[in-house]
Amino acid sequence: MTVANVGIDLGGTNLKLAVIDGSNSIIQRHTVPTDGHLGHDAVIANMVRGVTELRLKLGDAVTVESVGVGVPGMLDMPTGVVLDLPNLPGKWTNVPLKAILERHLSVHAHVLNDVKGFTLAEYTIGAAHGVRDALFYAVGTGIGGGLVIDGKVHFGVGGAAGEFGHIIVNPSGVLCSCGNRGCVESLASGPAIIGEANRRVVQGFTTRLTELIEDDLNRTNPQIIEQAASEGDPIAIEVLERAGYFLGLSMAGMIAALAPEMVVVGGGVVKPSGVYWNSFVETAISHNTVTDMSRVTFAPASLGYEAGVIGAAMWGRLVERGEATPAK
Amino acid sequence: MTVANVGIDLGGTNLKLAVIDGSNSIIQRHTVPTDGHLGHDAVIANMVRGVTELRLKLGDAVTVESVGVGVPGMLDMPTGVVLDLPNLPGKWTNVPLKAILERHLSVHAHVLNDVKGFTLAEYTIGAAHGVRDALFYAVGTGIGGGLVIDGKVHFGVGGAAGEFGHIIVNPSGVLCSCGNRGCVESLASGPAIIGEANRRVVQGFTTRLTELIEDDLNRTNPQIIEQAASEGDPIAIEVLERAGYFLGLSMAGMIAALAPEMVVVGGGVVKPSGVYWNSFVETAISHNTVTDMSRVTFAPASLGYEAGVIGAAMWGRLVERGEATPAK
Repeated sequence: MTVANVGIDLGGTNLKLAVIDGSNSIIQRHTVPTDGHLGHDAVIANMVRGVTELRLKLGDAVTVESVGVGVPGMLDMPTGVVLDLPNLPGKWTNVPLKAILERHLSVHAHVLNDVKGFTLAEYTIGAAHGVRDALFYAVGTGIGGGLVIDGKVHFGVGGAAGEFGHIIVNPSGVLCSCGNRGCVESLASGPAIIGEANRRVVQGFTTRLTELIEDDLNRTNPQIIEQAASEGDPIAIEVLERAGYFLGLSMAGMIAALAPEMVVVGGGVVKPSGVYWNSFVETAISHNTVTDMSRVTFAPASLGYEAGVIGAAMWGRLVERGEATPAK
Repeated sequence: MTVANVGIDLGGTNLKLAVIDGSNSIIQRHTVPTDGHLGHDAVIANMVRGVTELRLKLGDAVTVESVGVGVPGMLDMPTGVVLDLPNLPGKWTNVPLKAILERHLSVHAHVLNDVKGFTLAEYTIGAAHGVRDALFYAVGTGIGGGLVIDGKVHFGVGGAAGEFGHIIVNPSGVLCSCGNRGCVESLASGPAIIGEANRRVVQGFTTRLTELIEDDLNRTNPQIIEQAASEGDPIAIEVLERAGYFLGLSMAGMIAALAPEMVVVGGGVVKPSGVYWNSFVETAISHNTVTDMSRVTFAPASLGYEAGVIGAAMWGRLVERGEATPAK
């Protein structure tokens, strides 16, 4: 009888599910639509169905030890109650996700923030394997983060550590969705980059970018902007360098504070060694005068879009076995 | 035979020395001038003389187990070689402090950054006693810091963690001594506050502050500015609130990143519940939207000017007994 652990990564479009074995390899995968617009009950029902289908695929030779769930927002870790998922429709406030899953699946469920799952996976088997102190950035719709200090994921009070996206780097800057001004998320996330690029298109700059999007503002995305930049588009380069500058500023401060061995950066917006990447790395180095930057490595996340689901499954196993404790 | 540990706090004016017993109480004190202008050899000779005099005072009933030294700058912890003390005269670059002390004192010496000593003491027996995760700020001529994560002082690569003073909060701001612009140290340290206050005096504002300093710019200091503010001086209030705003901005970011239970603030500039204090606390709270701020306590350092020397002595004992390891 093989023991395995299920992970669920709750995304805006899809639920990614995976089963990992004892060596953290994925032995089974499944993806189902999130159906976020149908509300949290429907989404949780999709989770239950997804796990059930995975179990059927696994057959009787594999026992599911735990289910770990990564959610894109805030929760109360010990009870597994979701407090707020700002980027999902359907008002996820005070949703007892853990309890509902356990009732339907007859297996323990353990919930954590999705970027902490990413952090756990990238630390344990990914880019930061073997490193004791590292910072983790996930740059997508938002900018989330995680920390590994002395070989352990640091959660902080309420499990809320790692909110690097809401470090203020430009106090007189633009309004952030959180209500403050000049948070790095409002200046360097995917939507921030798209918004700045489109602003220039609307203002009449005609460059390679406007060709690539075929004059349709809805087609602008970070990948196309990176492509335009790689072909020498001065507007695309400026937009990416500016966003990278603000992300790099915030990284310089975090590195001054924590002196980590490594900074791992992943997420859909990030192209390793692209214009954005080079900008934040150069800015972080040039705006830090107090850390020996030759000893700080910048590394792209190495597990791709599966880091979150792997980390969620790992988290379930760790808590189930008493090797980690949900933060209060 | 009692075993005790000596601490030395290397300050710009004085060397503070103290002997602590096993319960971290000071059983003997000594202060000698630093004589920094005579160069590092003279300063180290003063340390040796100071420890020798302390040993004589202690008599034969007490054995000195180790000497711990806190230095205001950068060092290589394992070798105890001082790399740079920017605020001391006499070019402290590559000074083998540990080796010289050990040669003259026939006891092991262990060197650390002085703010890490402050952090260790305030965590172990001071304001943050019993707390697992806390940030420590020492606001004086510079702004230094320390972190306790999961019950341990976090040193980071090269022991360089905790450089909160060089977090950039205003990238278009004033030049900092480190070469960057808008570091919090350049906006919220003692000299920054004095400089801003004097700027207003020079510009012709005549307030309670100008009376208190008797028109002598050299008399302006943070204590007098706080006094003027407490008597309603609008200029003193503005200067302190502005400095507190920038310190609070940087704290908001650090709290978002680490979600600590406590933020301990000490140093000569800080008057608990003064105008500066209230400003940084209010700013940190209002500029953090991602941490449950009701669970983060702001506490004044509780050991006063002896925190550094106590922490240095503690550090010596920990390393001597193999209970802590100097960071590489």
